[in-house]
Parts: sequence; C-alpha cells; structure tokens
Amino acid sequence: MTKSKASPRKANAADIEEGTAFAPKFDADGLVAVVVTSAETGEVLMLAHMNSEALARTLETGEAQFWSRSRKRLWRKGEESGNTMCVVEMRTDCDQDALWLKVEMAGVGACCHTGRKSCFYRAVRSGKGGTSLTFVDAEKVFDPEKVYGHANVAKGTLKTQD
Amino acid sequence: MTKSKASPRKANAADIEEGTAFAPKFDADGLVAVVVTSAETGEVLMLAHMNSEALARTLETGEAQFWSRSRKRLWRKGEESGNTMCVVEMRTDCDQDALWLKVEMAGVGACCHTGRKSCFYRAVRSGKGGTSLTFVDAEKVFDPEKVYGHANVAKGTLKTQD
Repeated sequence: MTKSKASPRKANAADIEEGTAFAPKFDADGLVAVVVTSAETGEVLMLAHMNSEALARTLETGEAQFWSRSRKRLWRKGEESGNTMCVVEMRTDCDQDALWLKVEMAGVGACCHTGRKSCFYRAVRSGKGGTSLTFVDAEKVFDPEKVYGHANVAKGTLKTQD
Repeated sequence: MTKSKASPRKANAADIEEGTAFAPKFDADGLVAVVVTSAETGEVLMLAHMNSEALARTLETGEAQFWSRSRKRLWRKGEESGNTMCVVEMRTDCDQDALWLKVEMAGVGACCHTGRKSCFYRAVRSGKGGTSLTFVDAEKVFDPEKVYGHANVAKGTLKTQD
C-alpha cells in the first residue's frame, strides 16, 4: 500500500476557518497531525499522523487508523495488541491542518507500545543540572514482551509495533 | 532569524524510550510537533511546532515559544495579542518526537487567532450527506479585528498572526 498524496484544497481561507466544509490540509508528505485524547479522562494519549486513506477509513469505521511513518503503511491502531480506539469525537483546528480525536480505548486500555496508558509518561524538567526526564503516570498496564512476543519491543527497536 | 537544524540524536533506542535523558527527535525540517492543553480544563488548545531554538527558549523562560511555519520565524505565542502561555508542565512521548505542554493562558485566555479559547472549535461529523463540520465550544472571547487591527484577520488571510 502506498502513501496517498492529498490533492490541493480548493476552499478559500475564510471558508477554511469559519465554514462547515471539511477541507483537511495535508502536508508535503500527504499527512496531517492527529492528537488523541482519552474521552474518559481527557489525558493526551498519543500524537500520530493520518494520510487521506487513514482519515477516510477512520470516518467510515469509527475506529482510529493512522499512517505509520516508520512502517510506511496504513496502521489500524491496536491491530496486534487489541488496544483499538473507538472515536467518540473528531475535531479539526482553525486552518484544518490538525485533527483531535477523543477516543475510548478497547482491550486493556493502554495506548503506548511500551505498555503504558499514554505515550506521554515522562515530564521534561529543567534545573541547574540541565534538562532531564522524570517518569510520571508511567505504570505499565501490559507487558509488551508478552503482547507482541518480542523480547526487545519495549527497548525501542520495535517502535513500529502499535 | 533562520530555522535552526537539529543535530542527530546520539541516544540509543532503549535510552530514548526508557531513559531520563531528554533527546528530542526533530524531523527533516528541524521541527517537533507540540500539543498544547489547558492546565485548568484539560482542553486541547492548539497543535504547533518547535525548532530547537523555540524549545530552548521555552525551557529557559517558562513561556511557550514556537516555530511559525507560515511566517518562517520564531514565534512567542501571544506576542501581539497578549495571550501568552505559561508552561505548567512539559512532557515528551515514548520516542521523543512529540511534546505535550500543559499551560496557563494569560490575557483574556483565548488561544486561537480567531478569538476563541481553542483552535479546535469544530467537530468533524460524517453521515448520509457526507462529512462536514459543526461548531462546538466556538464562542469568541475576543474580536480579532480589534486585537490585531486587521479587518481580515479572522477570515484566514492573516493566520500567521497569533
């Protein structure tokens, strides 16, 4: 499956910002950035990308699909882990170059391939000693080795697993 | 001011996902995607980008700065409108190619250049008649024409204003 290129938008600027026509703006790679939050808690779960096909399938099925930049293929979130995402609401922003999905997680409710609920499990903190990361809300909900069957999935070598 | 290119990361995959070293992954354009939420309400306010300089200045000052892709320059959010963002917490994701800022808004508390609290003021809805947008949480907090002094700022021709 190849990455589909989006055709140029035809809507004018006023329509894009103040109209009701959906005219998503894909970037040079045919992608739009998508922020995903939990419909239940409001927590940011992940930031991913969609091409036009992933967007169309998400709208059609109600289940979140993305374009995996690392695997270079369409990616039904949770296709392997069972942690799929049911879209409760989709929003777009003022210039329609970003999407926000509010989702309900299926499976064990963990979004991140490392086994955690959210991909954002570390805070960036700066001080006299420089800038470093602190683990927050980092409890693992599942063991990625058991779910994906790869010993090194949680070590970053298999980030392409969902 | 030119867009600064990030140097390649030196950390290995395991360190990137499970370590405490901050090693943000900038894309080919030297940018990292940043989702901004309200520290008060949890609402997604905007999705923007930082280059390494914007990130460094944000960490140094505690006030959100971005790289404006349309203006091609560093952009201190609220520099014109007064609606600046005080960073309460910054997080990064598993592979450190995205950031999440929880912010407190200054000024009148509106993030979007159209005068609204959030840039995500329209829901994408699909039905028998196709896919269209519905305004939600779309009340204007300020009049962009008065704030920016341009008659067409809210019509999309001056999206580059913050």
